[in-house]
Amino acid sequence: MSFSTSIITLFPELFPGPLGVSVLGRSLSDRLWSLQATQLRDFATDRHRTVDDTPSGGGAGMVLKSDILARAIDLVSPQGDARPRILMSPRGTPLTQQRARQLALGPGIVIVCGRFEGIDQRAIDTRALEEISIGDYVLAGGEVAAMVLLEAVVRLIPGVLGDADSHADESFESGQLEYPQYTRPQRFEGVEIPPVLTSGDHGKIAKWRAEQSLALTQARRPDLLQPGKP
Amino acid sequence: MSFSTSIITLFPELFPGPLGVSVLGRSLSDRLWSLQATQLRDFATDRHRTVDDTPSGGGAGMVLKSDILARAIDLVSPQGDARPRILMSPRGTPLTQQRARQLALGPGIVIVCGRFEGIDQRAIDTRALEEISIGDYVLAGGEVAAMVLLEAVVRLIPGVLGDADSHADESFESGQLEYPQYTRPQRFEGVEIPPVLTSGDHGKIAKWRAEQSLALTQARRPDLLQPGKP
Repeated sequence: MSFSTSIITLFPELFPGPLGVSVLGRSLSDRLWSLQATQLRDFATDRHRTVDDTPSGGGAGMVLKSDILARAIDLVSPQGDARPRILMSPRGTPLTQQRARQLALGPGIVIVCGRFEGIDQRAIDTRALEEISIGDYVLAGGEVAAMVLLEAVVRLIPGVLGDADSHADESFESGQLEYPQYTRPQRFEGVEIPPVLTSGDHGKIAKWRAEQSLALTQARRPDLLQPGKP
Repeated sequence: MSFSTSIITLFPELFPGPLGVSVLGRSLSDRLWSLQATQLRDFATDRHRTVDDTPSGGGAGMVLKSDILARAIDLVSPQGDARPRILMSPRGTPLTQQRARQLALGPGIVIVCGRFEGIDQRAIDTRALEEISIGDYVLAGGEVAAMVLLEAVVRLIPGVLGDADSHADESFESGQLEYPQYTRPQRFEGVEIPPVLTSGDHGKIAKWRAEQSLALTQARRPDLLQPGKP
């Protein structure tokens, strides 16, 4: 059984979008994972297909209605579905590489994409939605955030990336930022590739890269080096 | 002059994608901002249109070539272009709402999307690319990250969101997570909207919301309440 992803959204036509190209797109065609995008508006019950209403207590924007969201979630992810149900939300737990790795080992993901000012808290509570945030900024909706989550997770599903694309050296996998990369030409606008990289001495190359990773992490993200970080 | 965005990518067909719907899409049609996506492969010089090569010093994956990137950047953003040149990269400075607000007040953004194992460091250095990360996880390429950056920034351009969609109460704008939202029906699966929200007492509602925001932030993101956070 392949990794199964379902998305509840007002813009199902945006999927697979970026998830349909390159190595993720090939693995989707090869059925290493599946993607189903469901139109939330199909669960509206009035002839205007209304999905939102004004916030109780006043304020800007509109709020997605609990009853309509619940109907969509119950159809897409009925009782017994083992997949985690995730709401993309700036209020959520920040996504990390570790969480992406955990999700990639599971049966799949159900994602609810918010829009407008937010969604009725009772849909979150009664349907046990796990709120995940992709970063400390605000987007116009959850669709791009869902793409981020899926791209981070799907590339970690066993078999999606070939051996040639090992994850071992990547940023965060080692708890540090990745070292600088170079490729031909040997000389670009007067700047040579660092001689150690063309020395053929694999021990020296590994040492140089480890030093570069550490120095870069110390300079840019000392928070990653503090104890307790994954 | 409207806010001008340019993207250098191997997948220009993915744009505007999610940036072309809803309020961002309308503001794009209304020319409050512009988007130009440039195919990096058009700057290759061999008949196979090669853009990458193996990493100097060995290792997995492929590296985007400095000479080809530099040609693309020089054409899209010639000397004198006042727009910041940004490389989406997990090694970069984490994107914040504050940085998005700064960028929205500028003339626009030039974004380079990486792919494969990374890009030649000399393209970053010689073209003064500012590395920005959208979070502590690894993606398959920079395209979805570019969409995140653009969505976060463009919605803050003056005039893009109407007055009805004020930013004031959003997560991070106040340094705290947003309070829970509710809307009709009054009763959903036996759960009522909190009575204070339907009391009509605006003072009490504001107090309740402030308390909820603080409690949620303390529980989920105590790091946001530490001194020194924007």
